[in-house]
Amino acid sequence: MTQTDIARSLTMKGERTRGKIVDAAASLMLNDGVAGTTIEGVCAAAGVGRSQVYHYFDDKGELVRAVIERQAELVFSGQEPHLAHVRGWESWEAWRDFVVEIQRKAGCVGGCPLGSLASELADEDELTRQLLVKSFERWERAFLRGVQRMQDLGLVRADADTALLATTLLAALQGGLLLCQTRKDVASLETSLNGAIGYLRTFAV
Amino acid sequence: MTQTDIARSLTMKGERTRGKIVDAAASLMLNDGVAGTTIEGVCAAAGVGRSQVYHYFDDKGELVRAVIERQAELVFSGQEPHLAHVRGWESWEAWRDFVVEIQRKAGCVGGCPLGSLASELADEDELTRQLLVKSFERWERAFLRGVQRMQDLGLVRADADTALLATTLLAALQGGLLLCQTRKDVASLETSLNGAIGYLRTFAV
Repeated sequence: MTQTDIARSLTMKGERTRGKIVDAAASLMLNDGVAGTTIEGVCAAAGVGRSQVYHYFDDKGELVRAVIERQAELVFSGQEPHLAHVRGWESWEAWRDFVVEIQRKAGCVGGCPLGSLASELADEDELTRQLLVKSFERWERAFLRGVQRMQDLGLVRADADTALLATTLLAALQGGLLLCQTRKDVASLETSLNGAIGYLRTFAV
Repeated sequence: MTQTDIARSLTMKGERTRGKIVDAAASLMLNDGVAGTTIEGVCAAAGVGRSQVYHYFDDKGELVRAVIERQAELVFSGQEPHLAHVRGWESWEAWRDFVVEIQRKAGCVGGCPLGSLASELADEDELTRQLLVKSFERWERAFLRGVQRMQDLGLVRADADTALLATTLLAALQGGLLLCQTRKDVASLETSLNGAIGYLRTFAV
């Protein structure tokens, strides 16, 4: 092994440990909230020592932000393929079914991994809030591209305000997920998404 | 004073103390979350002793449920008059402006007093979840009556599914409030509500 190989191998091991800590923290924070999650709990769940956690994260705030990035990536990477390859109205129904199916499989537990964090942390420190804003924006842009694709396909009117439609879709998703989580029933989520798609349809050519 | 007068006066005093405790707890839980709120903190904020809190509430769970009932009453009593006296499309715009103005005045802090609690507590004990469900249902019924009134006025088609429309409105409100709280900007909330009203308009006669 060369020095470079050793360094790379150490980095990969470090990345794995860091990932293990973030995964454990994400799971605990989804179940018990951020306030209900302690560094001790994260250590126990990840099977690492305190010093390892503090090697990768200056404080709990930095770990929380890593969890936000992880959850944002999770929801984005799940939905983005649906929204990036919109082929027509049936693509929106496929996206809706995909979202509903995830909740059904999860027993309607946890709500939106990003929305739950936003609800708890949006009024906390500015750094965390800005990361939440950025994460929602990235997600909203995926909706925006989906709606723009509908315009390109000649299925949605060229004068439709795509930015407003993207916000409407994201909000309907967030609200639907909260009702789904509370009611432990996917019906409200499905209804909410149908409403948002129905509104998009008012701009159909 | 008769014995009855004394009993009534004591009850009123008790009600005031209980109310003071619930108000203090509601305010703390809105700021710090339920998990971040301790009985000690509630005592300090309400200016009462622990024994007084435990006189009115068996445990923190019971206090939390009293807070849910208070917050549900707060959002319901604010919006219900708008929804109970729907006179036409302008009533929905007045309701939207009312909701947006509350957030603007609050500096977009806190989100929905009921939605925030739901997001944190929906996966906790069943008793609490059922109270959240009941609270959302009561709110949703106010939307339902508003949509039904539109039908009675001959402004919305008689065959429109009023229950689905009520869910769509509630979900759009919840999602919009979460984006508003995160972005510290009422624009997303306004957009989301316009989307839901726009969807309702697709059923206009």
